[in-house]
Amino acid sequence: MDLRPPSVRALMEELQKLPGVGPRSAVRMAQYLLKEREEALRLSQTLVQAHERVGFCSTCFLLAEGSCPVCDDPGRDRTVICVVEEPVNAWAIEATGEFKGLYHVLLGTLDPLRGIGPEELTVAKLVDRVAAGGVQEVILATNLTVEGEATAHFLVQLLRPKGVKTSRIAFGLPAGGEISYADTVTLARALVARRGME
Amino acid sequence: MDLRPPSVRALMEELQKLPGVGPRSAVRMAQYLLKEREEALRLSQTLVQAHERVGFCSTCFLLAEGSCPVCDDPGRDRTVICVVEEPVNAWAIEATGEFKGLYHVLLGTLDPLRGIGPEELTVAKLVDRVAAGGVQEVILATNLTVEGEATAHFLVQLLRPKGVKTSRIAFGLPAGGEISYADTVTLARALVARRGME
Ligand SMILES: [Zn+2]
Ligand SMILES: [Zn+2]
Repeated sequence: MDLRPPSVRALMEELQKLPGVGPRSAVRMAQYLLKEREEALRLSQTLVQAHERVGFCSTCFLLAEGSCPVCDDPGRDRTVICVVEEPVNAWAIEATGEFKGLYHVLLGTLDPLRGIGPEELTVAKLVDRVAAGGVQEVILATNLTVEGEATAHFLVQLLRPKGVKTSRIAFGLPAGGEISYADTVTLARALVARRGME
Repeated sequence: MDLRPPSVRALMEELQKLPGVGPRSAVRMAQYLLKEREEALRLSQTLVQAHERVGFCSTCFLLAEGSCPVCDDPGRDRTVICVVEEPVNAWAIEATGEFKGLYHVLLGTLDPLRGIGPEELTVAKLVDRVAAGGVQEVILATNLTVEGEATAHFLVQLLRPKGVKTSRIAFGLPAGGEISYADTVTLARALVARRGME
């Protein structure tokens, strides 16, 4: 017999949908959340609030609450755009302190087998930004995975005819590595040593 | 510069309070929850619902939604009480199918260094249940940790004068092991091979 009350079972099922959470961590988390009423209600509220208040910047697709922390900052270098897959990748790059330009979040990578082409990403908007002029360099900082590499190469072919310099964030990151998982020093070094991309 | 919007930062801080969630898993979870709006809102609701609907059974302190799944089941053997630390431990024991008696959840273990004595647990209520009569055996199924062992021994001293048989769930579980983490077969075997406790 399953002794878990239906609402507890529902909670554990929801927790197990989170990345990296298996049946045992779900039990531990549920136990904690049932004991700590204040924490549980605060987590519930922050989930709703994040969805009510946060959206994507319509220019660069970073997460923004009101104004964009980058596009709306007059102090940024508008001649360089760093292209990443997800907002979290930009957060990691920003934390290195080595980049003062603008970002462009693709919101994914090309993945033909899953039916994800350029139209499913924010590629057209990136091309528009470059075509609008003033951009001298586009740094491709997609992850160093098969999909990330393919996406970077695709964008280079697309952007080079527009007369903009393209570069790829330097290897130095572990191969197959997710940019958000790299430590700050490695990431800073990889960014400084970026190379031109043909 | 921290590019995370305040509401996202708040969400990540809340997620990091969950057991086993570090800064990197919090980033991955937040990323998932921001992308999957439906999932996020459902998780938020289940958290609130679990707290609105679920409480402790006032007899055995299992989690109950309305009636207690054990105390209010006329088919259970009322001559045996299995004492556990937390509701999740009872869920694991119940999953073995080897136990048909009643439970008693202590809601913790004795831990004098942290100021947790019998009054902070549901010990008095357990003594009342035994004193009310009809109980022939109390199985101590606290975890096989230092605190769990000490609590089992304390309860044996307390209950033996009441003329009830006491037994301890059999070793066979890995030492230092949490009962909820044991696989079902090991746990079933440990339960069947329980020994009398002096
Ligand atoms: Zn922006
Ligand atoms: Zn009960």
